[in-house]
Amino acid sequence: MTSLQLSAKEEMVERLLDAAARGDLNQVSSLLAQVPSLTNQTGYSGWTALMLAARNGHHHVVEKLLSLGCDKFSVNSSSQTAYDIAKFWGHRHIAGLLSRADAECQRILPSNGLGPQENYFSRETLDRLSGKRTDKLWLEAKRSDPDTVYLLFANLSPMVTQEDDAEKGETKLCRLRYEEVKDLLQKPSTVLIFIGMERTKSPSCQTEDGAPEPPVWFAINTDEDAAELLKRCRETNCSFPKTPNRDLLKLGEEEAGVVAQARSVLAWHNRYSFCPTCGSGTRLEEGGYKRSCLNSDCRSLKGVHNTCYPRVDPVVIMLVIHPDGNQCLLGRKKIFPAGLFSCLAGFVEPGETIEDAVRREVEEESGVKVGPVQYVSCQPWPMPSNLMIGCLAVAVSTDIKVDENEIEEARWFPRQQVIDSLFRGASPAFTVPPRQTIAHQLIRHWIGMNSNL
Amino acid sequence: MTSLQLSAKEEMVERLLDAAARGDLNQVSSLLAQVPSLTNQTGYSGWTALMLAARNGHHHVVEKLLSLGCDKFSVNSSSQTAYDIAKFWGHRHIAGLLSRADAECQRILPSNGLGPQENYFSRETLDRLSGKRTDKLWLEAKRSDPDTVYLLFANLSPMVTQEDDAEKGETKLCRLRYEEVKDLLQKPSTVLIFIGMERTKSPSCQTEDGAPEPPVWFAINTDEDAAELLKRCRETNCSFPKTPNRDLLKLGEEEAGVVAQARSVLAWHNRYSFCPTCGSGTRLEEGGYKRSCLNSDCRSLKGVHNTCYPRVDPVVIMLVIHPDGNQCLLGRKKIFPAGLFSCLAGFVEPGETIEDAVRREVEEESGVKVGPVQYVSCQPWPMPSNLMIGCLAVAVSTDIKVDENEIEEARWFPRQQVIDSLFRGASPAFTVPPRQTIAHQLIRHWIGMNSNL
Repeated sequence: MTSLQLSAKEEMVERLLDAAARGDLNQVSSLLAQVPSLTNQTGYSGWTALMLAARNGHHHVVEKLLSLGCDKFSVNSSSQTAYDIAKFWGHRHIAGLLSRADAECQRILPSNGLGPQENYFSRETLDRLSGKRTDKLWLEAKRSDPDTVYLLFANLSPMVTQEDDAEKGETKLCRLRYEEVKDLLQKPSTVLIFIGMERTKSPSCQTEDGAPEPPVWFAINTDEDAAELLKRCRETNCSFPKTPNRDLLKLGEEEAGVVAQARSVLAWHNRYSFCPTCGSGTRLEEGGYKRSCLNSDCRSLKGVHNTCYPRVDPVVIMLVIHPDGNQCLLGRKKIFPAGLFSCLAGFVEPGETIEDAVRREVEEESGVKVGPVQYVSCQPWPMPSNLMIGCLAVAVSTDIKVDENEIEEARWFPRQQVIDSLFRGASPAFTVPPRQTIAHQLIRHWIGMNSNL
Repeated sequence: MTSLQLSAKEEMVERLLDAAARGDLNQVSSLLAQVPSLTNQTGYSGWTALMLAARNGHHHVVEKLLSLGCDKFSVNSSSQTAYDIAKFWGHRHIAGLLSRADAECQRILPSNGLGPQENYFSRETLDRLSGKRTDKLWLEAKRSDPDTVYLLFANLSPMVTQEDDAEKGETKLCRLRYEEVKDLLQKPSTVLIFIGMERTKSPSCQTEDGAPEPPVWFAINTDEDAAELLKRCRETNCSFPKTPNRDLLKLGEEEAGVVAQARSVLAWHNRYSFCPTCGSGTRLEEGGYKRSCLNSDCRSLKGVHNTCYPRVDPVVIMLVIHPDGNQCLLGRKKIFPAGLFSCLAGFVEPGETIEDAVRREVEEESGVKVGPVQYVSCQPWPMPSNLMIGCLAVAVSTDIKVDENEIEEARWFPRQQVIDSLFRGASPAFTVPPRQTIAHQLIRHWIGMNSNL
């Protein structure tokens, strides 16, 4: 095939792949600086630039591609990740880079061969500085600091701005300043929480003692009129997204991490205004991480009680693997978009382990019995405040009997169908949940784990 | 040494160890039938019967010893578990037995080389039958069934009976019948929850359809006078333990699993009588797993809200390993008994992953920075309703700076000091938490993982 037969974009992809395969760091950098969207494009047999660089042992190119955010969980048409390829061809340093666990630590912690994984909503963008929550003077000074960043939530939805570049379509948080919100801080219905301090210092900051601290962030939830609130912001295209489950997934990783924290705490205040022990009103304390009962006789004030602290609900979510190792169990709820199948999931009950919750939920929802369970990774999900605990599970029975109150259908999907659906073959058997969900990442993890080298 | 120089018990131990090493199944069985307390006794260099049987490849003896409940996490003076020994000597079938994950499953899930672990409070003794919680007629019929078992809690402490055999000292739950509690069920302050159905059918039950179902269990919490309540029970030596943190650890594994569930749910009712969203009273529903607001205008009644369901608080607990791999970080709170050191721990915050919660808590409490984190196992802890998520973590810094609000002291302990303290050498450096805690099991896990073969 000559370049004449390729579109301009296809030609760029070919040049990137070729440069990555040859280890030409300069050309890789310059092509991606021009057209960032090339990063995860694939060529022959689904190979990405990262895979080609990993294949040929080009350490600097792999480093560069990773720093540009390319997807190391992608698999080629043989279901290999870049990590699998680097390992197979004996490029240990590159495999180490791709697995993100250094050799020294692997010596200390026996690994299952796959490095840790970062899920959406999981990045700790800010330092929570929980020790400062009880420092009233410090918090008060920070509230009126002109560098302080305020996020404004209405009905638990953050004010965001849409990028003009419609193709990219990323949503960004609106960052307001004290002057833009100070009147709201006076209103009794406003909830204000401290979220944390930026980790990276701006260039103007000094590292010596006495130098200015990096900016801190607060979040506000208010019930004022949303249209009026939007007028406060200097940015254009501002809005409060209506469907957080879908719209918050358009944020970048950094901002998604902040929203995961802020929305969970604000949602707690929204639901837990009254003392559950005696029914009295409560007062917000400790930078928004505590609510204390206003009734001085209430027993919630004696000792430490969970009624005073934000709630986090552990949920198990699991990819169940068929005893033959080559199929996985996915289900769909009635409310899912047509064609979408996902992992089964459910709340951990009181007095239950993660592993037993997986077994109980799978059997209740699908009738399938589960043996071994293995933790993979977790994801905070701020709708309102879940901790999704992602596991692989091996089935010990295969007959499906669906609990129709919980799900509409559950099915075993063969590995090849899953691969086709993940990478959008001509006629995929089903739709995979979006990449921001831990369900998607568990499915990828399984595909990548068993790549057939 | 001849048998003349040994006490009677020592002689029995020697005979057991010898029989296990030779693979004499009959003698092992008969000795343990006579004196069950021999099971975990050790001989030369801390070897148990299980280790000797594993060393010499005696599969049936290993099976027998496991069925008699011997401790497969014990280590000898070289820090080897029976599993390590079986693996080293190439007895794969025995290693498989000891790791509890069968070969087929290991093929599907890459293992870190150590099998799953059961912690105290973790056994799912009863089938929760969550589908029956909404079946009012079924629940009502079961309430007055003469086979139904009632556990009676006063002030969240279950009625127990002490075994006469003072040496064994095990505590058992008092199992009451409908006739013994039916008046309490009428009182408005009584909280009644359905816990589940026995899994093992009694011999009189038939397996065909229409046969009697196994007994179900309920738990009651009441604020009636404890001394009066004790008179209801036919058993002797009954009491309501005063210090659940300590006294509930004397139950057997089966009953501890039931208490983990029942106490967590009852504690929720005890603290969450009022609607946190509007402050109104609430009504108990779904067999005790839901509370609904009595105010028909309350928004907690529209859609699904966590305010209506029991709370489970995820907590991370971690053994931090020194970058050299040969020391671990333990700390003590002021309230600990003298000499006791344990793992660091803390609540998972809203919007936080398990791994980041480990890193944040370790740095807050001890000043030590943590890199990789690996999940090991978890434990429900019903004081009141925590889910302890146990992890190993590798430190990337070593200087300790303690947060004195949280802990009194933290220290790096060398492996040999930990081994001496676990197995009570002549002058242990510190006291290890009791075996029922996940802290103890994490410490053992680390010792066993790195056994120096």
